Amino acid sequence: MRIVIPLYEGFTALDAVGPYEVLRMLPGAEVVFAAPRPGPVRDAAGMLALSAGATLAEVDACDVLVVPGGPGARTLMHDADFTGWIRRLHPGTTWTTSVCTGALLLGGAGLLEGLRATTHWGAVQALEAWGATYTPERVVFEGKIVTAAGVSAGIDMALTLFERIAGRTAAEATQLAIEYDPQPPFDAGSPAKAPKAAMDLLTSRRR
Amino acid sequence: MRIVIPLYEGFTALDAVGPYEVLRMLPGAEVVFAAPRPGPVRDAAGMLALSAGATLAEVDACDVLVVPGGPGARTLMHDADFTGWIRRLHPGTTWTTSVCTGALLLGGAGLLEGLRATTHWGAVQALEAWGATYTPERVVFEGKIVTAAGVSAGIDMALTLFERIAGRTAAEATQLAIEYDPQPPFDAGSPAKAPKAAMDLLTSRRR
Repeated sequence: MRIVIPLYEGFTALDAVGPYEVLRMLPGAEVVFAAPRPGPVRDAAGMLALSAGATLAEVDACDVLVVPGGPGARTLMHDADFTGWIRRLHPGTTWTTSVCTGALLLGGAGLLEGLRATTHWGAVQALEAWGATYTPERVVFEGKIVTAAGVSAGIDMALTLFERIAGRTAAEATQLAIEYDPQPPFDAGSPAKAPKAAMDLLTSRRR
Repeated sequence: MRIVIPLYEGFTALDAVGPYEVLRMLPGAEVVFAAPRPGPVRDAAGMLALSAGATLAEVDACDVLVVPGGPGARTLMHDADFTGWIRRLHPGTTWTTSVCTGALLLGGAGLLEGLRATTHWGAVQALEAWGATYTPERVVFEGKIVTAAGVSAGIDMALTLFERIAGRTAAEATQLAIEYDPQPPFDAGSPAKAPKAAMDLLTSRRR
């Protein structure tokens, strides 16, 4: 059970680490973090680096591909080397997945044309430019392609996928292991729920 | 706003990265990952490494201390160098926090004596051995000491803390930024909710 998570400059750390912490508990799991170059890869904020244990060139097959998102995805989706790597791996995977704007990288690889998919709520237009139909759900399955909504949705995606691979009881045991009994202090986790003041503040932060 | 997250061999990656992804959005946030030695620090599963940008010796003050848990905490809680470092930093912090079995490290530093605290549900006895009273809540505030339940609870803790530091609207904007609208596929995230079969499987995995 080989799980590959590509890293790139400007990825969002939680997009990668949320699913990692779940999927690493799959029976026989081996997780490989791969990047264009080996060594530490800085995240979007530039304050954290994860180590890539392999280069993309060294990885030519996996069972589960998990593509994280992040601000860097907006440029990387036009990078033929990176998207070509995804396109080459995809036919051999059992599951090809993305978290957040990782969906733009699947899009750039040509995998989402004509499919339903989800991504971060702020990346809907960019997603649809790749021929996908944005579906405002937490996790969207289209055959073996699985997309998750923004950042934290990777945890829900990974647990859902865990059930498909290893069965419900094993998935529940994993949820219990990470004590995933979420109790957000606010109900502001989607544009439909967030107060206008929060959306306005976030928009001004991003300017 | 200096946030310090110590890393050590055998930490759980999501314990550190969940709060990181939230707290890094605090106004003026600077996040430092520190470890006994600089360089990559392997997580509990040994399949992921985060880079430490500083040694513990180089860090002698911070506003927010976030101590992640992990299997490694069970031995590290007896390490006088590590717990002494926590004890030296604590008087100067605005907030001293832990996620999961990171509470055992606060306990080893002598900070939880006589206080209410939470930790991973599987570490209750170890927590109480440090003089704390286990409180089965997602996040427990005792003055400036904040403890979170297992692994994924660090996200809820960080959002709760974010409100205390920067106000409700800013905290909601951050929740929206990470699209934290959790929809776990099962309701098995705590011992009180998980089916017996899931608990039995998890117990057998850990043997």
